[in-house]
Amino acid sequence: MKNIGIDVGGTFIKAAVVERGGKIVLSSKTPTPKNGEAIPEKTVEIIEELLEKTSLGTNDIESIGIGVPGVCDSKKGIIVNCPNIENCKEIAICEYLEKKFGIKTYLDNDANCAALGEYLVSDEKCDSFVFVTLGTGVGGGIIINGKILRGINSAAGEVGHIVLKKDGEKCNCGRRGCWERYASVTALVRQGKRAGMTGNVSGRSIFADLARGSVKAREVIDGWLSYVAEGICDLVNIFQPDEIVIGGGISREGDIILNPIKKFTEAHSITDNRYGKNTRIKISRLFNDAGVVGASFLYTQN
Amino acid sequence: MKNIGIDVGGTFIKAAVVERGGKIVLSSKTPTPKNGEAIPEKTVEIIEELLEKTSLGTNDIESIGIGVPGVCDSKKGIIVNCPNIENCKEIAICEYLEKKFGIKTYLDNDANCAALGEYLVSDEKCDSFVFVTLGTGVGGGIIINGKILRGINSAAGEVGHIVLKKDGEKCNCGRRGCWERYASVTALVRQGKRAGMTGNVSGRSIFADLARGSVKAREVIDGWLSYVAEGICDLVNIFQPDEIVIGGGISREGDIILNPIKKFTEAHSITDNRYGKNTRIKISRLFNDAGVVGASFLYTQN
Repeated sequence: MKNIGIDVGGTFIKAAVVERGGKIVLSSKTPTPKNGEAIPEKTVEIIEELLEKTSLGTNDIESIGIGVPGVCDSKKGIIVNCPNIENCKEIAICEYLEKKFGIKTYLDNDANCAALGEYLVSDEKCDSFVFVTLGTGVGGGIIINGKILRGINSAAGEVGHIVLKKDGEKCNCGRRGCWERYASVTALVRQGKRAGMTGNVSGRSIFADLARGSVKAREVIDGWLSYVAEGICDLVNIFQPDEIVIGGGISREGDIILNPIKKFTEAHSITDNRYGKNTRIKISRLFNDAGVVGASFLYTQN
Repeated sequence: MKNIGIDVGGTFIKAAVVERGGKIVLSSKTPTPKNGEAIPEKTVEIIEELLEKTSLGTNDIESIGIGVPGVCDSKKGIIVNCPNIENCKEIAICEYLEKKFGIKTYLDNDANCAALGEYLVSDEKCDSFVFVTLGTGVGGGIIINGKILRGINSAAGEVGHIVLKKDGEKCNCGRRGCWERYASVTALVRQGKRAGMTGNVSGRSIFADLARGSVKAREVIDGWLSYVAEGICDLVNIFQPDEIVIGGGISREGDIILNPIKKFTEAHSITDNRYGKNTRIKISRLFNDAGVVGASFLYTQN
């Protein structure tokens, strides 16, 4: 049996037919409708296309899982509100798809889906697992004993919004000094520009500069990583999890990012200093597919 | 049936016979042996005395639960290391007591016990629950779906060691700028002294000054509470728990502490700003009995 994962983003809807082990059979990418109300209908089209191209019938699909960038009621299968998509409120998407296809459909927050994806493709025992994604913002998801930690609004794991610098820079969430404000890729770019980088500065360009031996890029990246590492160390102290996985496109830089974080956490976390066992810190295995693969795993959660 | 709770501290061992609902039948307080190796024997004496005074037999006791200020292996019932008690390493205390009394015995970290105690006497539904204790340091414990979140070293919930001020004041844990460094009662006293308070300054004396209308005490307490509130807000954003309970002796000050924290969290947490449901923030119900009552509840965890 296979499952279908749908990852609704602000710009694109990614979708895939996924094997139980997490392997993508076929995927697609479609612009997100400007009007959120059109999402259920658009999702039907996307699924029909995937089924057609893979020559699969609805009987071959065990479940559909949907991740959305906002608040949802997972129990009722209702999108409560996605603030970055217009008119994306109070949409009973699970019922709609279940009626259409006769396939059990699940819904969760996109960061939770990504965390679930990374958790289920991890090859080591994890009673507790934390996923952190570095991108436009800093997001995350938490898995405890195999289950997504949802919290009271299905949106626990807002790890980007812990304060690293009280009374620091103003964050989009309204607080000051949030981790996201210093450790996102957006922050890295801002830090690069402040250091005098010019032109089309991006996370990728800064790491490309580093690869070319730029001293300035080294300084900017070191500064940024010192923030990333502090937040990871906070999460180690709070959860003492078996594993923390760092994702988002920038995590493709691999050991350049990972090693300084590990070094800092080994030196400064309570776990690594005082106790026997340490948290494993790893780079994402699914990268941009985490959301869609994780969504296809949602059937394990209910 | 009743249970016995033992709360081993650096200075005293508190013990109590506790009813299932959390009511203490009889309690005692004994100096902690200087040599940690003597703790099992001393605990036997304490239990024998409690049984004698309550006229209870071993058949009347369902279980014994022990909380210790350090790392333990809850599965094996072994105290791994209590750094603040000499020679308190690798002690198989559960086996010792089980052989002596024939009563099933459980072991956990003291902060986890206190969290469990507060959780089980809470009168509202809590899928996720965070306990924070403000004292010499800032400690905590996390309960998810009724179970203590132990983490890889049975010591998750080191919430005092998240960084609120990167590169700030040096913390005992080795990092800089930890929440504990600004939000513990020790920190409140330090902040009071820095503001020019003299004499025998304590948490209690500062709140007594406030009650007498001291403007300086108001400023010091406001400053301290701004740190307490930032950390609570972090925990709301990470866990979106049903409930956060604030404990430690200072929590007896009640609304003077609670109201500013609630106000800050309502204004600044992601939950309270964006979503429908808010985390309940409450003051401890058990105060200094949380550890001993929680230890008596450990049988619910295994």
